[in-house]
Amino acid sequence: MIELSLVGIGSGNPEHLTLEAIRVLEEADLILLPRKGDEKTELADLRRDIVADLLKTKPKVVEFDYPVRDAKTPKYLDGVNTWHDALAEIWTGLIAEHGSSNAKVALMVWGDPSLYDSTLRIAERVATKGISLNTRVVPGITSLQMLTAAHAIPLNTLGAPVQITTGRQLRDHGWPEGVDTLAVMLDGECSFQHVLDVPARIYWGGYVGMPQQILRSGELSGQCDEIIETRAKARAENGWIMDIYLLRRTA
Amino acid sequence: MIELSLVGIGSGNPEHLTLEAIRVLEEADLILLPRKGDEKTELADLRRDIVADLLKTKPKVVEFDYPVRDAKTPKYLDGVNTWHDALAEIWTGLIAEHGSSNAKVALMVWGDPSLYDSTLRIAERVATKGISLNTRVVPGITSLQMLTAAHAIPLNTLGAPVQITTGRQLRDHGWPEGVDTLAVMLDGECSFQHVLDVPARIYWGGYVGMPQQILRSGELSGQCDEIIETRAKARAENGWIMDIYLLRRTA
Repeated sequence: MIELSLVGIGSGNPEHLTLEAIRVLEEADLILLPRKGDEKTELADLRRDIVADLLKTKPKVVEFDYPVRDAKTPKYLDGVNTWHDALAEIWTGLIAEHGSSNAKVALMVWGDPSLYDSTLRIAERVATKGISLNTRVVPGITSLQMLTAAHAIPLNTLGAPVQITTGRQLRDHGWPEGVDTLAVMLDGECSFQHVLDVPARIYWGGYVGMPQQILRSGELSGQCDEIIETRAKARAENGWIMDIYLLRRTA
Repeated sequence: MIELSLVGIGSGNPEHLTLEAIRVLEEADLILLPRKGDEKTELADLRRDIVADLLKTKPKVVEFDYPVRDAKTPKYLDGVNTWHDALAEIWTGLIAEHGSSNAKVALMVWGDPSLYDSTLRIAERVATKGISLNTRVVPGITSLQMLTAAHAIPLNTLGAPVQITTGRQLRDHGWPEGVDTLAVMLDGECSFQHVLDVPARIYWGGYVGMPQQILRSGELSGQCDEIIETRAKARAENGWIMDIYLLRRTA
């Protein structure tokens, strides 16, 4: 039985790692490390730094390339499923090649493996490919937590609900009913500009938790253009950007 | 200027602490530690154990008692506000008595200070009581992350939104529109029994992340009575319970 640990590593600062995350990585026989693909080189480097600088042991590290996601697949979900399956094939092959039949295998996952992340779904597919697998999850600090920490704000208002959603959902469905706080992730298109009719504050962060962190907050309608410009400029300078924001309806 | 750090410590397992949390606690001049009140003795003990076992330094620790919340205040929010103000008075007095004017003061917060927690709101009140205060937040692993990790499930389904809500919201407003995944916190009344008409799976956890962790999952209608009984029994045995659950609508 292979023990596969999906280890949340937080959002770019090695200090986000928990003691449990470090212990599980130290105890691993094999660490699978994504080299590139839809992730940025800096993020692969962070994983290498964690192994080199934080672990007292030296587990075997095998790097792999992400398959290219086929953006032309007509239905979005079909494309994602095909891509998950290709990744599961890669993991299965690497575990068979480099791990014993009862190896402890670890993967470092950006943020927390439970939140807008594919690794749990890919691990499920690995389990169907002839490998006897026990999957465990080690939670990590999410970029959403880094956002609220950086702004020193609560996620929720007193006793009230919060919706975590995506840029696509916000564009397609607008501001959802019955909820005053929205946390928006996976948004490459500044989708907050589609809900300017709602009186709200925005708390935006680029590269949250990283040295190049940028924060903006204020009335949504007043901050909208400023954030779009700031984001475009930072993306051009760094070659990539990861951003996240919270919208809070005002009375 | 007092630097007040609200340090998330996770959900009962000292291994949930991040490297940043440990460093900030080690660098503190003064740690304020709640002794009892609405929190359980075991939780106060966990904080003492963290100071005694995990920190390489020995910051000054001052323990304090929580004021009793007045459940008879007619409006729930008035009661909460009065209680927050009483706590802010206590913190202000302790910081003035035990800290220098530029002391680094730390408070250990269960879970993450951003999620259904009062400390950020109390810190805001301290800042109005004549203390010059800079508040920073160190995120911690939440019980919601422990729940999904323990069940090895994603929080969201692919690209879909998630609502984090309370037992009270679920009882008062039912299953919200437009969202298939609900994470329910602060529920002392097994409020899932009010939405049995929705076909859904439940992933429930008591004492998540702690040695006495209990997990149940399955079809909501089938698990409802079992979870109510399990919860009542565990609460009677331990003298207290903290639980949390995720509901996922099924097709």
